[in-house]
Formats: sequence, structure tokens, C-alpha cells
Amino acid sequence: MGDITVGIDVGGTKIQAAAARDQEIIGTFRLATPQSGARDVAAAIVAAATAALAETEAHPSEVRGVGIGAPGTIDTGAGTVSSSPNLPGFQASAPVPLGTMVSEGLGGAPVTIDNDVRVAILGEWKRGAGRSYRNLLGVWVGTGVGGGLILNGEPYHGQGAAGEIGHIIVKPGGRVCSDGRKGHLEAYAGRGRMEVYARELHEGGRKTDLFKIMEKKGRTRMSSGVIADALEEGDKLAAELIEGAAWALSVGLATVQNLLSLEAIVIGGGLGDRLGAPFVERIAREMEPLLFVGDEPPKMLTTEHGDLSGAVGGAVLAGG
Amino acid sequence: MGDITVGIDVGGTKIQAAAARDQEIIGTFRLATPQSGARDVAAAIVAAATAALAETEAHPSEVRGVGIGAPGTIDTGAGTVSSSPNLPGFQASAPVPLGTMVSEGLGGAPVTIDNDVRVAILGEWKRGAGRSYRNLLGVWVGTGVGGGLILNGEPYHGQGAAGEIGHIIVKPGGRVCSDGRKGHLEAYAGRGRMEVYARELHEGGRKTDLFKIMEKKGRTRMSSGVIADALEEGDKLAAELIEGAAWALSVGLATVQNLLSLEAIVIGGGLGDRLGAPFVERIAREMEPLLFVGDEPPKMLTTEHGDLSGAVGGAVLAGG
Repeated sequence: MGDITVGIDVGGTKIQAAAARDQEIIGTFRLATPQSGARDVAAAIVAAATAALAETEAHPSEVRGVGIGAPGTIDTGAGTVSSSPNLPGFQASAPVPLGTMVSEGLGGAPVTIDNDVRVAILGEWKRGAGRSYRNLLGVWVGTGVGGGLILNGEPYHGQGAAGEIGHIIVKPGGRVCSDGRKGHLEAYAGRGRMEVYARELHEGGRKTDLFKIMEKKGRTRMSSGVIADALEEGDKLAAELIEGAAWALSVGLATVQNLLSLEAIVIGGGLGDRLGAPFVERIAREMEPLLFVGDEPPKMLTTEHGDLSGAVGGAVLAGG
Repeated sequence: MGDITVGIDVGGTKIQAAAARDQEIIGTFRLATPQSGARDVAAAIVAAATAALAETEAHPSEVRGVGIGAPGTIDTGAGTVSSSPNLPGFQASAPVPLGTMVSEGLGGAPVTIDNDVRVAILGEWKRGAGRSYRNLLGVWVGTGVGGGLILNGEPYHGQGAAGEIGHIIVKPGGRVCSDGRKGHLEAYAGRGRMEVYARELHEGGRKTDLFKIMEKKGRTRMSSGVIADALEEGDKLAAELIEGAAWALSVGLATVQNLLSLEAIVIGGGLGDRLGAPFVERIAREMEPLLFVGDEPPKMLTTEHGDLSGAVGGAVLAGG
């Protein structure tokens, strides 16, 4: 058995692979996620892993394990994925044995799968911005808002679903969230709900270039790039959306900090990484007056690996 | 060294002692807290411990250790107490060496001190309603609202101040809390803030018997007994206060559950114990529709030891 691990971050639009040796990334590869079903997604994962390995001087037999972060409902024991709305072939509630499929394509290497956000936060905790913290929250701001907790120096899962910071209540009776309930953090800070809200306002007569920019960029969704471009052009609605997101994050993270007395909070995800340090600093500034113990604020961090966090975490998950 | 431990719960109005052997309480004693200073409080603690021991057949030399739960700022390493608003002689920010004072009065027995709410929750976790849970929140509803967390099977303190559930935000911009910030859980569910709010409404012309009952019972504060009596008489403002408390607790605990995926939540404290199971069930009912993962609700528990929780926890803290 070799000393190389491979991490894979599987998203609805792209698959990112990273090969690691001695805690160092030595090869990476990215390709588009096939939209044609589970078998093709598994084959693309194998192809991405193989290409990342090809960048190294290692022989495939040196691979000790493969770790995959995937969206949806994961059975970590069985290595299956189900109920994943944005992953073609995995939308149904019937579990797809992705672990076995990928293992077969990679000569029988052991494959471990976990939730994509958790895996990315594992990457930042073990090999990135969160190194050295025993009590850490990761907040992944993208289409939704996901999270993961490291408490007393180990990942915390509770009964299984811990870390769902997108669904903490920041404003009772407020905006409708992706799960239909009201006033959740994600209803303000998730890109998906921002788009719904912006569209409602736009249809009600509110001026914005957001949807023009979407069209010009050939996007069907309000991506982080679309929002960033609109902000750069001085679009007022885009600025308001981000203001709302920062407000909701400051309230939600103050609540979590007052409860958990964390050492650090790392903010990542597509939108979090795109808006970067100025966004994180803004949240920290707005959060500060809301902290109960003001002299122990959490360190507020951006990710170290950006959109590679998930693949790095996958390599950690595989034992690397 | 013997096999007996003594636990002490020190409050602003009473001191409760319990002697334990083999995880069983074998003697208890309660007396009023002297209002005349730290030296007298320490002497009263020694007297209460001695009286609890006298109920047993044990010799004082059999005492292995003493554990104290006290309000205020505790230095657990030094065994000191400071900044404790309701404990006469301990209000100042200069630390009072309560551990040494009590140890000297008890023939040199080792004394451990920790925060009163944490110690009470330790008692319910190790010897009470919270037994068998690895992920547990204790919420102590009294003058304020305190809390304590057991996560992954061990007490969780974060940077030190973890568990301050009274200061999570349930309504941004809402009622003013004891710390001057707005919309905290304690602003709705803490007896102290309920009293301030009720007095404002009453002075503004709102009818209520709360203050008459206070006077009749000879209380200077709106105690749990005063609130309970008013509820029994059908006082509408009292009912509204409890409605507000249950609402705030249901929102706050749903947020915590969505984040931490706990197995159980135990609700205690003066008001929590007084209102008991119907109050806890009401909170559970209002919380349920707010849970993100509905099929894994936390068990909602009342305390097993009531106002003895703190003394029981003290005995646990002392190694019993």
C-alpha cells in the first residue's frame, strides 16, 4: 500500500480532484460534471482522479485511499449518495453506491464518502486556515449555506445532522428559506434564495442589472460571478442583497459565538470565497457589538484553499 | 481518604448541601445565605456541609472532596469567586478565595468550585435526567437564563464562556436584555427581565395582580412563586409573560437544535422547575415545526433533582 491519497470534490457543475502525499498536494485536475447520470459521474470522478495522479510521478498502485465530498444525503458506512438535487443521477431517494463504482474504476482502492461541506471544512481544519484551532465553525456560503463544527478538537456531528447553520433562525417570521420555513440564515445569505428574492423585487418593478449580467454571461443561475460583476458596476440591488447577507451572518454568527465560545470561524463556499476578506471583515465588524463576551471574539478567517478546500479535505478523509 | 463527597449549591438566598456516597445522596441540608459578607458565607457553607454530613453515619475524615457551584466569575484553578451580583461579599471584581476558606473550615478537605449553572447541569447529566446522553444542552431558567453543553460525551467550554444560551439572539432589535443588548433569549425568558417588562407595562396602565401578589408574599422580586400564583389566579399579564418566554425558548432552542443536532435538552432553574413538565411540553410543541430535521427532535426533559441539581452536581464535581 502506498502513501498517496486522492481527494475529490463533486459538485453539480464541476468535479475537482487532488492527489496528496505527506500532507502536500502534488497533483490536481478539474473537469465538468456530466449531466447524463450516475454512471457517467462515477466515470468522470475516476478520470479526474487518474489525471490528478498523472501529474505526479506516482504509480496508481501507490494510492492508499480516495475520499469524496458530495452533496446530498450520504450514508458514510455504505458509501452511497441520494437526494442530491443538483447532482445528475443522484436526485432520487434511492441510494446510489458511488463508493463502490469509483473503487472499481480505480483498481479497488478504498473509497470514503462524506458530505461536501463537511469534507471541505475538514480540509481547512487539517490543512488550511483552521489549523491549530480546537473549536472552529466553518460556514460555506454558496447556493445554500452549509456548515461544519470542530469542537474539543474533533468533528462534531451530534445525532448526525449537526452544522446546519443555514437553518438557524435569524429573524422569526422573516424571509422564506429553501426548506419553506421562515427567517433562516440561508434565506438571506444563500445565493439561491437571494436570486428568488431579487427576481420578486425585479418583477415588482425594481431596477437591477443582475438578470442582464446573467444573460450576458450565459448563466441560468445567479452565480457568484454574476453577483460580483453587478457589485462592481454599482448595482444597488446587488449591494442590498450582500448587505442583507452580511447582516444575517453577523446576527447568526453572534448567536453561535455566544453559545459556543469558538476560537475561530472560517467563511468559505462559492460566494464566500468570491467576496473574500472584505466580506469576512464586514461580518466581523457587524458581529462585534453583538458578542456577549467582547474580549474573546472568534478569529474570522477566509479559506486557505478556496475552491480546492473540498478536494484537500477529501484527501484528508482518505487518511492523507 | 474516604469515599464521601459533599456538593454545595451557593445562591443569593440559600445554600444547599448534599453528601454523597457511591453516587447516592445520603444527607442534605439547607440554610439561608448570610447577607453579611464573604467570611459569613464561607462559614455558612461549612455549617451546611457539616450538617449534611451529620445526617449520615460517616465521620468527617471520610470526606474525599467538596464541590461548590457558585454564581459569578469563577477561577476554577485558583478556587476564587468574583463579580457575583447577588452573592453578598463577592460582588467586587477582586477574587475571593472561597475554596481555601471552605477547605480550612472542613479540616483541609480539597475544594473545587465552578459556575453554578454548569455544576447543576453536571449533576443532571451524570446523576439525573440527562444520564445516557452524549449530546445534551441544559437550560436553566431563573432570574437569568444560563446554560451548559455536553458534546461528544464531555462538558464543552469553548474558550471558556460557552453555554451562554441566555444571550443568543431570538429577535434582532427586540426587548433589551440584562447586558443591555437587544433581542436575547433572556430578555424574554429570564425572570429579572420579565419583571422589568411587567413593571413598565403596569406603570403604563396595564392591569395585573403580579405586584400585589409580590407584596402579599413579602417578596422584593418577582419570584417563580409569585409568577406561579398569578398564573393560577388567571392573571393575563403573567400568562403573556410565560407565553413570551415559551415563544423565545422555542425559537432559541430550535436554532440550537438545527445547529447542534442534540439528543436531549433539559430545562431547569427556579422558574423552569416551578413551571415543570407542562412548560417544557409547551416549548417542545412550539419548537417542533421550527426544526430543520423533524424526525430527530431532541428529547425534552425536566430535571430529576429539581433545586438539588446544583448540590448533586457539586458532589460529582468533587469526584463523587
